[in-house]
Amino acid sequence: MDFRTEFKPLTVQPQEIEEKSFAMITEELGEHSFTEEQYKVVQRVIHASADFELGRSLVFHPDAIRAGIDAIRSGKPIVADVQMVQVGISKPRIQKYGGDVRVYISDPDVMEEAKRLNTTRAIISIRKAAREADGAIYAIGNAPTALLELIRLVKEGQAKPGLIIGVPVGFVSAAESKEELLKLDVPFITNIGRKGGSPVAVASVNALSLLAEREG
Amino acid sequence: MDFRTEFKPLTVQPQEIEEKSFAMITEELGEHSFTEEQYKVVQRVIHASADFELGRSLVFHPDAIRAGIDAIRSGKPIVADVQMVQVGISKPRIQKYGGDVRVYISDPDVMEEAKRLNTTRAIISIRKAAREADGAIYAIGNAPTALLELIRLVKEGQAKPGLIIGVPVGFVSAAESKEELLKLDVPFITNIGRKGGSPVAVASVNALSLLAEREG
Repeated sequence: MDFRTEFKPLTVQPQEIEEKSFAMITEELGEHSFTEEQYKVVQRVIHASADFELGRSLVFHPDAIRAGIDAIRSGKPIVADVQMVQVGISKPRIQKYGGDVRVYISDPDVMEEAKRLNTTRAIISIRKAAREADGAIYAIGNAPTALLELIRLVKEGQAKPGLIIGVPVGFVSAAESKEELLKLDVPFITNIGRKGGSPVAVASVNALSLLAEREG
Repeated sequence: MDFRTEFKPLTVQPQEIEEKSFAMITEELGEHSFTEEQYKVVQRVIHASADFELGRSLVFHPDAIRAGIDAIRSGKPIVADVQMVQVGISKPRIQKYGGDVRVYISDPDVMEEAKRLNTTRAIISIRKAAREADGAIYAIGNAPTALLELIRLVKEGQAKPGLIIGVPVGFVSAAESKEELLKLDVPFITNIGRKGGSPVAVASVNALSLLAEREG
């Protein structure tokens, strides 16, 4: 047994690890048809998932990157569907433009309303967000019902998102909700299939805020 | 435009969605060699990732499930490497036995020490956990450096985890850190390869707390 209280530091620097990872991703991914800016998102998603199939399955509305950067730079809020997405998003680059990262799913009024209507808290939280967060970036990594509700509200003119990042994961409705998103004429980032998740939503927002920062 | 303030509820019940998903997973996975209890973890990991390859790559120390259940039922803490893991874990089933879910990575003393030693906050946070959380379940979904440090502390007799859930994701050191964990004679749950992540760590803990609850 060793009762030292001082330890030898390992030679691991977060910045170095990230740079090395990104180089490996670019090399292994090889050819692709993403734009340089879209690729920043793809690369960060692969970094967060170690899943090239997931990275390749990403689909970008042509205005998605521009809309995301503009929303961040004009201080629009980010609406996360779940707390895991909310805590994962890097805040300083959002806050420096006046934005914040919101999550409504555990608000008492949302929980009460979901119970009353016998539906999911995810759905009710999106209704609340739609009332409060015009022009927001929606980052949906978990709940297909949240994405489906947002699509419905957009179609009815009751939600005005700046960008929808719709990457819920799962077996029931996840892939279908993304198919619906693909038909929508609003800026979106999504992927084909069942995969997705909170880290994918987080990585997408973090990539966009880095692109926003690059513009000064 | 439709200015209704009341909406028609979708017919989607979280419990129904989960049951249907689990049935799909069991059918699609087909044959496997996990025990009934291990499979509860595997199923929940696949549910959280929609990734059968990841689910199949899970490896359980023979005592892992028993150790996890015992730790939860005796109120040992859960130590999460990052906040995303901490917020994702279902708390009521941990708290009912007197446990809690801790994360040290953003503690001011951890940040300061990491800066001083020019190393990662993940490493320093594990050192702090090792001093404070004997018998804990470590849920490491993000940082390979955290897992490597925990392994080192176990070898030196300075950390006494009840169970190590070591499923960091990434390109640098993630797969290697899990290879090291496989050699350790403490209860562990891990997987082979680069994949993993916060949702995998969360799903594993949540599956274990459900198993704990099943015992009353």
